[in-house]
Amino acid sequence: MNDSLKNDVFLRALLRQPTPYTPVWMMRQAGRYLPEYRATRAKAGDFLTLCQTPDLACEVTLQPLERYPLDAAILFSDILTIPHAMGLGLKFETGEGPLIERPIRCATDVVSLAKPDPNQELRYVMDAVSLIRKELNGRVPLIGFAGSPWTVGTYCVEGGSSRDFARIKGMMYDDPKSLHTLLSTLTDITINYLNSQIAAGAQAIMIFDTWGNVLSPANYREFSLHYMSRIVDGLQREADGRIVPRIVFTKGAGPLIAEIAKVNCDAIGVDWTTDLSEARRMVSDSKALQGNLDPCVLYASPEKIREQVAKVLASYGYGNGHVFNLGHGIHPTINPEHAGAMIKAVHELSPAFHQ
Amino acid sequence: MNDSLKNDVFLRALLRQPTPYTPVWMMRQAGRYLPEYRATRAKAGDFLTLCQTPDLACEVTLQPLERYPLDAAILFSDILTIPHAMGLGLKFETGEGPLIERPIRCATDVVSLAKPDPNQELRYVMDAVSLIRKELNGRVPLIGFAGSPWTVGTYCVEGGSSRDFARIKGMMYDDPKSLHTLLSTLTDITINYLNSQIAAGAQAIMIFDTWGNVLSPANYREFSLHYMSRIVDGLQREADGRIVPRIVFTKGAGPLIAEIAKVNCDAIGVDWTTDLSEARRMVSDSKALQGNLDPCVLYASPEKIREQVAKVLASYGYGNGHVFNLGHGIHPTINPEHAGAMIKAVHELSPAFHQ
Repeated sequence: MNDSLKNDVFLRALLRQPTPYTPVWMMRQAGRYLPEYRATRAKAGDFLTLCQTPDLACEVTLQPLERYPLDAAILFSDILTIPHAMGLGLKFETGEGPLIERPIRCATDVVSLAKPDPNQELRYVMDAVSLIRKELNGRVPLIGFAGSPWTVGTYCVEGGSSRDFARIKGMMYDDPKSLHTLLSTLTDITINYLNSQIAAGAQAIMIFDTWGNVLSPANYREFSLHYMSRIVDGLQREADGRIVPRIVFTKGAGPLIAEIAKVNCDAIGVDWTTDLSEARRMVSDSKALQGNLDPCVLYASPEKIREQVAKVLASYGYGNGHVFNLGHGIHPTINPEHAGAMIKAVHELSPAFHQ
Repeated sequence: MNDSLKNDVFLRALLRQPTPYTPVWMMRQAGRYLPEYRATRAKAGDFLTLCQTPDLACEVTLQPLERYPLDAAILFSDILTIPHAMGLGLKFETGEGPLIERPIRCATDVVSLAKPDPNQELRYVMDAVSLIRKELNGRVPLIGFAGSPWTVGTYCVEGGSSRDFARIKGMMYDDPKSLHTLLSTLTDITINYLNSQIAAGAQAIMIFDTWGNVLSPANYREFSLHYMSRIVDGLQREADGRIVPRIVFTKGAGPLIAEIAKVNCDAIGVDWTTDLSEARRMVSDSKALQGNLDPCVLYASPEKIREQVAKVLASYGYGNGHVFNLGHGIHPTINPEHAGAMIKAVHELSPAFHQ
C-alpha cells in the first residue's frame, strides 16, 4: 500500500492546505456518458454484477482517468450494497431504478435486521478497492463512499426510489423509535463498511445524503445529520501515515450547510442551488467545499462551459479549500468532450485563485 | 358578484390584518384523496375534460368545503391550461403525467408562439370561476391561480415532467435569449389569464413555482423570480372594492424567500424544508406566510397530526399574517379523516396565537 502518491492536490485541498490549482473530479465520473463504460457494463450483463466483479469495477473506475487529467478516482460501487448485504434483496430493473424485494415495513422488521460483516458479504467491495489502488499506482487518490443512513433507509423502507417518501415519513411521524433503530443499525454497519474500505486502501471518504433535503430542518438534524456525524466520528482518521479526509454531501442542503459544518468532517459537498460564496460564509472557512457546477451546464457549448466554470471558481474566490465538482452526478446523455472542456477550464483558470 | 363574504379570515390574514384564528386550506384540496372527487373524475372520463367542464370543475372545487370547515376554496384547474390554449397539444396519460405533443425545441418555435385570448381559448376557466363564485355564495373566498413562467416553461420545453430539466437548462446556458423570449411570452399570457380570473370572480391569486428550486440562486432570480414579479405587478389590485391578495410560492425556496420578499406580493408560500420562524425572520414581517406542514404528516395518527400542527403554529408564533397550509399538495393516498384532523387542530389551537 505504500505507493508514493504522485498527485495529492485533492487530499490537500480537502484539508485546506495550499495547492497550486483547484483539483477536480466528477460525481459519477465512471458512468453511462462514457462509451467505454457502456461497453464494460454490457460485458457484465447487469449493474449489480458490475459492482460485484472487482476486475470490472476496477476497469470502469479507471476509465475516466484514461480520458481526463482528473485529480481523484472514486470507487465504482453503489450506496445500496449495504441493504443487499443485509439480505433485503436488491435488484436493478432496466428503467425502473433499484428495487428492494423485502422492504422494511414494521417494527418487527427493524429489530430482526442482520449486520453483515464487510469483509465477508461485502468482500467484493474491498477486493475492488485493493485492486484499484494497485492499478492506480499512486496516480491520484482513491475515494471510498457510502450513502447516509437516512438516504439508504429511504430505499430500505420504500422498497425503491420514491417521489414523496410516504412510508419512511409515516414511520418517522408515527413510530420514530423504530426509525431510529433502523438508522442506528445502518450507521453501525456503515462505520464498519467504510473503515474496511479505508483498510483496503480508500484515501478519502464521502458520505452521500441524496434525500436529506426532503426533511424539515428539525427532522434533518434528528434523522439524517445526527447519523452522518456518528459515522464521521467512527472513522479511522489515518491510514499509511496520511489523514483520510471525510466529505459530507447533502444534496440541496442550502442553509443547513451551517449545521453540517458542526460535524467533524473536513469538507462539505455543495450543490448548485447554493452559491459557494454563501456556503463559504456559512462555514466561516472551517471546512473545505466541494462543488458546485450545475450538471446541465455540460449540455452547453465548450465556450459556455468555460464561462460557467469561471463563475464557480470566482464564487468560491481566492484561497485554498475548494475541490471543483459538479453539484450532482454527471448525466448519462452528456457528450464526453464537454466533460473534458470543464476539467480543462478548471485546470487553466484556477491557478489565478491560488497565488 | 356583490355577494357579501361571510368568512374573510383568509383574505385578512394574507393582508396581515387581525384575525381571531389562523385560516387554513390545503393545496390540492379538491383531489384524488377524496372518494367524491374520484367519482366525479370517473364521470368526466379524463382529467382535462374535468378541467374544461365548468359544472364538473365547480363540483370538485366545492367538495372539500362540504366536508371540512376550510377558510378558502381554490379553483379546480391545472397550470398547463396555458400551453394547451397556446396549441402545444396537452395530454394526460394515465400514470405518465402531462405530455406536451408539440414541445418548444428551438429559437424558431419560440418566436412563432400564439398568444391565446383568455376569454376565448380559456373561456371554460372563466366560466368555472363565475359558477364557483355563484355556488360558493360568499361562504369563503375563491383563489385563482397560474403556474410561474419558469415552471410552465419546463413542461413546454421538456414535453412533460422532467427529472433533470436537461432541455430547458441546455437552452438557458446556450441560448438564454430564446428562453427569455419564451418566458416573456408566458408572462404576458399569464397576466391576461389571471386578470380575467379576477374579472370573473377570483378573490386572491396564487402563483405556483414548483420547479424554481432546480436553479442556482442567480438563475432563479433571472429566469423565475423576475417573471413572477412582472406578473404580480401586472395584476388588478382590487375587484368589487376589495384588495385581491397575491401569493407567490416557490417550492423549496429556502434562503431565496428573502428575495421573494422584494416582489410586490402580499404573501409567500413556504414548504416544510424552511421553518416558518426562519422565513418570518427573512421577510421581517413584511409579507404574510402560507404553509408549511409536511404533507406526509397526514400519514400519521390524528394525535401525531395535532402535535405537528401545534409545532407549525408555534414556529410562526404570535401575531397575524399566517395562513396554515400543507407545504405541498395533499397526497392521493391520504385518509380524508386525517385531513379533517389537521383542519380541526388548526382551528382549535390557533386562537391562542391571536390574542
